[in-house]
Amino acid sequence: MKFTGRNVFVDPTATIGKDVRIGDNTTIYPNVQIGDRTVIANDCVIGEPLSDYYTNSSYSQPKTIIGSDCLIRSHTVIYSSTTIGSHFSCGHRVTIRESASFGNHCRIGTMSDIQGDCSVGSYVWLHSNVHIGQQSRIGDFVFIYPFVVLTNDPYPPSSELIGVEIEAFAQISTGARLMPGITVHEHALVGANALVTKDVTSFSCVVGNPARHVKDVREIKFKDGATAYPWPLRFERGMPWEGIGFERWKLQRQDQ
Amino acid sequence: MKFTGRNVFVDPTATIGKDVRIGDNTTIYPNVQIGDRTVIANDCVIGEPLSDYYTNSSYSQPKTIIGSDCLIRSHTVIYSSTTIGSHFSCGHRVTIRESASFGNHCRIGTMSDIQGDCSVGSYVWLHSNVHIGQQSRIGDFVFIYPFVVLTNDPYPPSSELIGVEIEAFAQISTGARLMPGITVHEHALVGANALVTKDVTSFSCVVGNPARHVKDVREIKFKDGATAYPWPLRFERGMPWEGIGFERWKLQRQDQ
Amino acid sequence: MKFTGRNVFVDPTATIGKDVRIGDNTTIYPNVQIGDRTVIANDCVIGEPLSDYYTNSSYSQPKTIIGSDCLIRSHTVIYSSTTIGSHFSCGHRVTIRESASFGNHCRIGTMSDIQGDCSVGSYVWLHSNVHIGQQSRIGDFVFIYPFVVLTNDPYPPSSELIGVEIEAFAQISTGARLMPGITVHEHALVGANALVTKDVTSFSCVVGNPARHVKDVREIKFKDGATAYPWPLRFERGMPWEGIGFERWKLQRQDQ
Repeated sequence: MKFTGRNVFVDPTATIGKDVRIGDNTTIYPNVQIGDRTVIANDCVIGEPLSDYYTNSSYSQPKTIIGSDCLIRSHTVIYSSTTIGSHFSCGHRVTIRESASFGNHCRIGTMSDIQGDCSVGSYVWLHSNVHIGQQSRIGDFVFIYPFVVLTNDPYPPSSELIGVEIEAFAQISTGARLMPGITVHEHALVGANALVTKDVTSFSCVVGNPARHVKDVREIKFKDGATAYPWPLRFERGMPWEGIGFERWKLQRQDQ
Repeated sequence: MKFTGRNVFVDPTATIGKDVRIGDNTTIYPNVQIGDRTVIANDCVIGEPLSDYYTNSSYSQPKTIIGSDCLIRSHTVIYSSTTIGSHFSCGHRVTIRESASFGNHCRIGTMSDIQGDCSVGSYVWLHSNVHIGQQSRIGDFVFIYPFVVLTNDPYPPSSELIGVEIEAFAQISTGARLMPGITVHEHALVGANALVTKDVTSFSCVVGNPARHVKDVREIKFKDGATAYPWPLRFERGMPWEGIGFERWKLQRQDQ
Repeated sequence: MKFTGRNVFVDPTATIGKDVRIGDNTTIYPNVQIGDRTVIANDCVIGEPLSDYYTNSSYSQPKTIIGSDCLIRSHTVIYSSTTIGSHFSCGHRVTIRESASFGNHCRIGTMSDIQGDCSVGSYVWLHSNVHIGQQSRIGDFVFIYPFVVLTNDPYPPSSELIGVEIEAFAQISTGARLMPGITVHEHALVGANALVTKDVTSFSCVVGNPARHVKDVREIKFKDGATAYPWPLRFERGMPWEGIGFERWKLQRQDQ
């Protein structure tokens, strides 16, 4: 069905792993390295040159690295100089700009917009249309929902950008906006449409505009009275503790 | 001008109606059925295979059905197993995932993101960049404006999704977010940037974060003092009561 | 690297300036005029025909004008009848619909959605995913950040649209929504996620839902106590006063 090679361009300097499949109309530019078994779907541009390319005749194209076992869906653009780990998957029309780094097992939703000069850990799930500003740092096991923005300009317009930091296990709900330089600490939960203007402490649930602490996430109960957070105790799908449980997984890690 | 057949691929198992036109660079995958006179513009992917295709060598591609007299604009992706009625039109870069169903005469704006496993009635207009989560149910004659999100995860992250229901004639303004499991009843009006955390009763206008009832929509007046709602009494363009009026149309329907 | 002419279509009636470069898979429709040294990247559609084209066999394609020294990034769609000045640059997947006009030196972010029938001045920077409704008027030196919406329908749904006006030097932060017919006056600053329901006076900083005046922007200080606004006194990058300063530039302009 797919992968018939129709109108596919792969630059001869690209390094393509074993059993890689590339969809129709896709363009792979120089110095791209793609790991084994990765799928790049239709109409993508991988290794998009930096802005400098358009104006500087002595431009030199940096390496673009995409790990093994990834799935890049259609119409996605990934810039040169970016590094993506293994088992990454993304939706359609994702943009990942220059000097971004992703760990392993990340999932990025349709139309998410990663502005570059940022770092993202492993097992991070961004839903559709998440906007990650430059200088953002995102830890492992973070979930971010649609239309969230990690801003970075404290006095717009300015050239001094101060990114947002989101620590491991935090959850940022739909439509929340995080002001420049904010840190959201481990296991915090930011509510939908919240405007986060100061740091959020570990395990804090904040809501509103401006966002205020309303409770400890460990007080949030399901309708049947069971405890909903910390979420790794009940959610395992796609996580490294799948099948063994979070507590046992933590112990195994400590043993290593 | 368009429709010269440049770099178009149509799978031999696709069923293409009379006078269908297909734009440059577009890909039509197996088991797609397209009704008469429908236009698929440039750079689209129709019948995108389900995720299973990439990993399962015995994958079987479900049917994709697009009705007659539709207009699908460029860079749109429609997944296999989805069904779209007649007279559908959409903007650019729309994503419609698997197992979605649309009635007739729907209009979907540029970059709207329909997550699949959802049902949409007839004469529904979604503006640009509307996000419809899985398990959503939308009635007839609903209008939704840019950057609205119908969420579905009550305790993120979880795998038990509870969709939003929007009943006929409701209006959801720009940037509103609807929490999982909420029902917005007939003729309600949700204000811009509202965060809707509980059901909205028929004819209620709600605003704010969290959203609160501020008035009955039938109290909303134009500057000249005329009544603005229920809106079908004054807005006819593209609606089935165009030319005859809403009240007469309702009577005709009852007679049938 | 780029610009090898792979699967590029340029209509013979298009007027292409000197040293123009056109990326792979891009389509240039009739009556498009492109200025010298402009770059159109991959997978774009320039001169997209108006809706009328699909149904009217006597359709006549209006002119599309793109100035010199522009950079249009990949997957962008620009409609016929739109005019864009020189030194324009845009991100990926931008949509610019019919009868839009842009001055010179504008920068438009990835996935921004310009609905047409609107006018934008010079040196306007729109970040990613900005939504400009029909009938909007934007002055010179305006900055607008992600997911901002300029609305236009005072009684949805209706056909009588009343656009937003944004005067020179104003700043509209992430996620703000501006109600139909609002004017934001010179040098105003609209806060993140604000819902602007009435006019904003010059130099006013407004925040919240609904937005309220909190201070004069000239009272906003950097951490070191220096004054942050009016911003042209401290931000010069890409502006016509770069290298000479805003005050001197203003004097030079008055002399002319």
